[in-house]
Amino acid sequence: MHKITMLGTALIGRFYTLTLHSGRGRDRVHVLYSRTAERARQAAEEWGVATWTTDMAAAIDDPETDVVVVDLPNHLHRDAVLLAAQADKAVLCTKPLARTAGEALEMLEAVEKAGVFHGYLEDLIYTPKMLKAIQAVNAGAVGRVLWTRSRETHGGPHSAWFWDTEQSGGGAIVDLGCHCIELSRALVGKSVRPIDVVCWAGTQVHPIAAEDSAVGLLRYDGGAVGQFEVSWCFRGGMDLRDEVAGTEGTIWLNHWLRTGFELFTNVGPQGYVAEKTEGDRGWLFPVGDELNELGYVPMFDEMLNALDNGTVPLETFYDGYVVNAIMDACYRSVTSRQWEPVRLEVWRGEGPVAAQRRMVEYDEAHLLIKEEVMPDGKTKLILKEKASGKMVEKVTHAR
Amino acid sequence: MHKITMLGTALIGRFYTLTLHSGRGRDRVHVLYSRTAERARQAAEEWGVATWTTDMAAAIDDPETDVVVVDLPNHLHRDAVLLAAQADKAVLCTKPLARTAGEALEMLEAVEKAGVFHGYLEDLIYTPKMLKAIQAVNAGAVGRVLWTRSRETHGGPHSAWFWDTEQSGGGAIVDLGCHCIELSRALVGKSVRPIDVVCWAGTQVHPIAAEDSAVGLLRYDGGAVGQFEVSWCFRGGMDLRDEVAGTEGTIWLNHWLRTGFELFTNVGPQGYVAEKTEGDRGWLFPVGDELNELGYVPMFDEMLNALDNGTVPLETFYDGYVVNAIMDACYRSVTSRQWEPVRLEVWRGEGPVAAQRRMVEYDEAHLLIKEEVMPDGKTKLILKEKASGKMVEKVTHAR
Amino acid sequence: MHKITMLGTALIGRFYTLTLHSGRGRDRVHVLYSRTAERARQAAEEWGVATWTTDMAAAIDDPETDVVVVDLPNHLHRDAVLLAAQADKAVLCTKPLARTAGEALEMLEAVEKAGVFHGYLEDLIYTPKMLKAIQAVNAGAVGRVLWTRSRETHGGPHSAWFWDTEQSGGGAIVDLGCHCIELSRALVGKSVRPIDVVCWAGTQVHPIAAEDSAVGLLRYDGGAVGQFEVSWCFRGGMDLRDEVAGTEGTIWLNHWLRTGFELFTNVGPQGYVAEKTEGDRGWLFPVGDELNELGYVPMFDEMLNALDNGTVPLETFYDGYVVNAIMDACYRSVTSRQWEPVRLEVWRGEGPVAAQRRMVEYDEAHLLIKEEVMPDGKTKLILKEKASGKMVEKVTHAR
Amino acid sequence: MHKITMLGTALIGRFYTLTLHSGRGRDRVHVLYSRTAERARQAAEEWGVATWTTDMAAAIDDPETDVVVVDLPNHLHRDAVLLAAQADKAVLCTKPLARTAGEALEMLEAVEKAGVFHGYLEDLIYTPKMLKAIQAVNAGAVGRVLWTRSRETHGGPHSAWFWDTEQSGGGAIVDLGCHCIELSRALVGKSVRPIDVVCWAGTQVHPIAAEDSAVGLLRYDGGAVGQFEVSWCFRGGMDLRDEVAGTEGTIWLNHWLRTGFELFTNVGPQGYVAEKTEGDRGWLFPVGDELNELGYVPMFDEMLNALDNGTVPLETFYDGYVVNAIMDACYRSVTSRQWEPVRLEVWRGEGPVAAQRRMVEYDEAHLLIKEEVMPDGKTKLILKEKASGKMVEKVTHAR
Repeated sequence: MHKITMLGTALIGRFYTLTLHSGRGRDRVHVLYSRTAERARQAAEEWGVATWTTDMAAAIDDPETDVVVVDLPNHLHRDAVLLAAQADKAVLCTKPLARTAGEALEMLEAVEKAGVFHGYLEDLIYTPKMLKAIQAVNAGAVGRVLWTRSRETHGGPHSAWFWDTEQSGGGAIVDLGCHCIELSRALVGKSVRPIDVVCWAGTQVHPIAAEDSAVGLLRYDGGAVGQFEVSWCFRGGMDLRDEVAGTEGTIWLNHWLRTGFELFTNVGPQGYVAEKTEGDRGWLFPVGDELNELGYVPMFDEMLNALDNGTVPLETFYDGYVVNAIMDACYRSVTSRQWEPVRLEVWRGEGPVAAQRRMVEYDEAHLLIKEEVMPDGKTKLILKEKASGKMVEKVTHAR
Repeated sequence: MHKITMLGTALIGRFYTLTLHSGRGRDRVHVLYSRTAERARQAAEEWGVATWTTDMAAAIDDPETDVVVVDLPNHLHRDAVLLAAQADKAVLCTKPLARTAGEALEMLEAVEKAGVFHGYLEDLIYTPKMLKAIQAVNAGAVGRVLWTRSRETHGGPHSAWFWDTEQSGGGAIVDLGCHCIELSRALVGKSVRPIDVVCWAGTQVHPIAAEDSAVGLLRYDGGAVGQFEVSWCFRGGMDLRDEVAGTEGTIWLNHWLRTGFELFTNVGPQGYVAEKTEGDRGWLFPVGDELNELGYVPMFDEMLNALDNGTVPLETFYDGYVVNAIMDACYRSVTSRQWEPVRLEVWRGEGPVAAQRRMVEYDEAHLLIKEEVMPDGKTKLILKEKASGKMVEKVTHAR
Repeated sequence: MHKITMLGTALIGRFYTLTLHSGRGRDRVHVLYSRTAERARQAAEEWGVATWTTDMAAAIDDPETDVVVVDLPNHLHRDAVLLAAQADKAVLCTKPLARTAGEALEMLEAVEKAGVFHGYLEDLIYTPKMLKAIQAVNAGAVGRVLWTRSRETHGGPHSAWFWDTEQSGGGAIVDLGCHCIELSRALVGKSVRPIDVVCWAGTQVHPIAAEDSAVGLLRYDGGAVGQFEVSWCFRGGMDLRDEVAGTEGTIWLNHWLRTGFELFTNVGPQGYVAEKTEGDRGWLFPVGDELNELGYVPMFDEMLNALDNGTVPLETFYDGYVVNAIMDACYRSVTSRQWEPVRLEVWRGEGPVAAQRRMVEYDEAHLLIKEEVMPDGKTKLILKEKASGKMVEKVTHAR
Repeated sequence: MHKITMLGTALIGRFYTLTLHSGRGRDRVHVLYSRTAERARQAAEEWGVATWTTDMAAAIDDPETDVVVVDLPNHLHRDAVLLAAQADKAVLCTKPLARTAGEALEMLEAVEKAGVFHGYLEDLIYTPKMLKAIQAVNAGAVGRVLWTRSRETHGGPHSAWFWDTEQSGGGAIVDLGCHCIELSRALVGKSVRPIDVVCWAGTQVHPIAAEDSAVGLLRYDGGAVGQFEVSWCFRGGMDLRDEVAGTEGTIWLNHWLRTGFELFTNVGPQGYVAEKTEGDRGWLFPVGDELNELGYVPMFDEMLNALDNGTVPLETFYDGYVVNAIMDACYRSVTSRQWEPVRLEVWRGEGPVAAQRRMVEYDEAHLLIKEEVMPDGKTKLILKEKASGKMVEKVTHAR
């Protein structure tokens, strides 16, 4: 059982607190911190939290608290984490870990030096579908991973500070790309080194300084590619999809807009449908249990169980640091308009891997390139002559 | 925090125990009962349960136990429940509550007389999608409910006793129809009286005495119809779908085979995919978190929270009794080949309701029957002349 | 190349004419007949038809015409067909063939006696998906067919006459059930005799005399069951779905609302979306090519090619007659509240077939009832002892 | 009515010929040319074509032929087109038009100088869904287009020559990217100038010289981005999907693997399922009418109707030329590892357009950035202070 200090009372603080208090959970948010007293007081009352304060250090130092959860604007993550490390408390920090890799590294070093438990609250790794997809990939179900796609787009964040580059550190990349990048890493393998990126970013719709849309490609050691698509301009709800293509299979995940729950209503559902839903008439796509589908429930379960068991959670500050380093390279690529290397001062994964090809022997003289059943029922083989490199066809009869 | 005696160690016992021990739960299965020592011992070891026994009364009477969960073959539900009532323990019983309404009524009277907490473990009411669908329907999102469809089909149950009518009380109706019927009641409204049923049942594939397929229609007071489709002959996995049609909207739920998780694999996922999956190559449809998607997690959360708070859970033995009464009528209809009344000795819902029609005034002389946009962009109205009852058309120009 | 007289100028006449004139087609509608001069004139102008008239006999007798297409209100089908037979013209009649089996039989006898080509315009048999599904079923892809489901529901017909029982011969059953019943026959096998039906019908929403909703079950010789669901009360567009379950597989078709075309719009598509769409904002589900997706293009192609080649088309008046006979039994069942036999004065299919069971020998002493992979990776078998009939379990180890 | 010379007898020649001869079509393939007599003879016999030859010039010059269709390997397109232009015949050429923009320009100039009708056989523009999507976009249904995604991936081409860079001109980009690029142009608007591209390409699986996977981003004048994903390594069938995101809406198209036709079979469909299907057991996703779903039927209808009517078809050699120019830039970007300009010697579209932002006045002092309904039912607005540029929040109460 843990007593938790929650730093931050915005939507994410609400989701975190509801999650910790839901089900048959044995943990409680004990102290609530907000920068404004009014919000702290209101949230404490609404969410059933005993204590609230506008003094961050006091919130962290509360003697009953053993875990600090940071869900503040991005520019405040560092200070909060440093204070928690100083206070020798376990600390869980929301995504992105920091605004830059530099900031992230400072935070990583602080918690490691202090020896406190640290978790990176990348919730989308923990969605039930993603956990099972990672498990399937690790079991070899899709073979060698060649390509991942992670898409997170909606109409923009719900807090004013996120629209201000100074506080957030960027636009849609830093807000949403951090999710996509970490999902890609988890699917390709976290021990596989990210090499370089190319990234397009634009401000397509909103009168703001930051990018409201971006697409990036991340090359990994060994040849896999991670593609991310993020936007604050999407219409139709929140589009959360992931794909994996491998040598032996493929995975398609749709987390939000098509999950087997489809509702047509002429009158509206008379209440909240789901995060970032647009409209309340016609065909709507609610989600069953939002806190679970977004990964919050499995995330806190895993993190706090790891804390109890003295093990390392799935997502640590080191992961947050790598994500920040990749995002830094994305921003450099947007400016330089070319591929940019991912600069990692600290790399804890594996060294260089050679690229692989699939060499399937057909007979002594040929490699098999592919086979396909044709409309006339016959099977056509494409073969490569080893000696000449020439491609030839061979048609075999129906099974 | 509760200490639980689990009666039964088959698949459902495994799911229940894993659920109770999962996440950050504070409840523990403390005693495990099975009819054979070997299974009790093995399950206790595998699931981390302290005590096991083959003596049902001893399992129930264990002084630390305050909750008894019954997941035994159907013909043993009554005895287990009567013992738990005698022992003054809270009792949760799996579906179906009993083999017949007579048995169910005896069990209901026993727990009510003893004054013990009783919950009917109808898990599919608790799936995240169904909970939200019920909420939407109750909020009026689909208007007046006209029709529900609940379909549960797969390749047949995994325990031998369920294929034996003596122990189970029937075939696919008693195994799966109990889910479908209760889902229909929850969507139409549990206070609306079920009137009569017509049911087809057949033994289409298996060399057994019981029905392996059935379709039934249940008429409710006020005119709504609940349709259920159950089968032990379905190929392709476990087909769990629900639909609602109302005057203002419609809901489509797909709980298992199309949930936004799609996997193609040429090599197999190298492990368990999901309950009743067929095959392990090609396109597969895993589910994210099986215990949650099947409703087990929300079900035990709600039940045990109700027990803690002294409130009535969503599903009680009374609900189980009503379901049994409806299934009894289904079996009578299969034999008589006509509609059969639902016989409820105890009815706690509302009295007769008049059927409703939608009367939309178009002008003084006409009712509006419908309107539709035509391919040429014009809108066509169908009107009914109040005086003559004659139907007429009226075309209006595009918006 | 054919010159066609089109009797009727409502929505279906428009669809038929557009279809015949579409693509690279070589056939032309040459004469248009409507009961009112204004509609005939307008339609002829809009659809590019040379001649129009309000004299049905003259339209049929036009010397250039060699094919008559009947798309009039149901109560006029008989007279039109009898005139066409007299005039020795090929005749294609829209669905339902007639209001009753008696009327249908009279029409069948007339065309057969006259020896003219006759086609029953059951378009939904000809949708590209259904044609391929029938082909797959005939090839054995799903094994022995056990159950079919055909659902057609929307907000009601677009012509006033269809809301008037006198002209239409009934409500949703006669309007939509005729499609569903013929789809079921095509999937189960048209040579398999339909035995009896049970049917529920209600007037749930509209202030009309006819049923606006119905569900029926049709038993076939040999044990298959065809289920149909029809309604004029559905909200959310036009719900056209078909399912087949067989001993070796299953088929799910969704013809209209989920076909891989999904559009979210905040402003509307600024035009017609698809037949019976509701609303023009939010998530919409258009169809690619409506005339093709509804089967009109393949239907006229097949019919006119059959006429050219002197072969029998897929759907003849005999099929229309059988459908009417089944619908007659449905209406009787609605009144009698019990199963009613299908009365077929003329049966051209096969004689009685014995019901089948699947007997899979496991070993000398046991039949195999089923096998399933369990969450622990083991495979569980359910076996039936041949001697005792007792069911037993056997667990085998993971592959 | 047209008499057609078909140059080429591979899979695409089969599809083209079947299409031209299908339905009630009035056009006929009259001469068949193949490089090998055996294939020409066999195809002519199988497809019912009167004449065959291995002499390309003779095939084109046949006096009865008025239309030449080119479906030869890419390196032969130019010669075939130049001969057809010389012979003053209408010429339709399969995709890609050429191997490079230089070649394409030469072909464009030849047909324009000769004044012959020319059509670019980009079939995927003509799929029923894409035609309707383009229509919806043109009608403003999604507002200003911001981003398109076009994905075509499968297990590789079915002809040996396509695996040989010399004959094909490249790998997956030139094979599949040409489709994706033209789809993007059609959605963004063909008159909008393509500016520059960045492209990743890899040889991830096959032992070949060309790229077997690529992802590219194409920036348009005005700020829209077109994304394409192509691969010869995909497992699970043929993945054909398109997406559009605009300021007012979004479109999702799935052309092949999820079209509302889902088949589970334990025994196989006993025949051809659909192009590039993998496996024949388990869950399969056939398509209804392959020739129509791939756009062949609407394509030839539109092209030949345009020829008859003396109008310009949807797709001309100029379009093919622009696509080649964009692909050339992609290959340069793969090498240079940076954005590369699209070099168009001939541009027939519009001149530069300014980028747009959405400026929604909230009140005199603020712009509205976004609004969202929160879980507590309140609506939150993000506003930008015009004077300071500062972002502020405002919460309003539920509707």
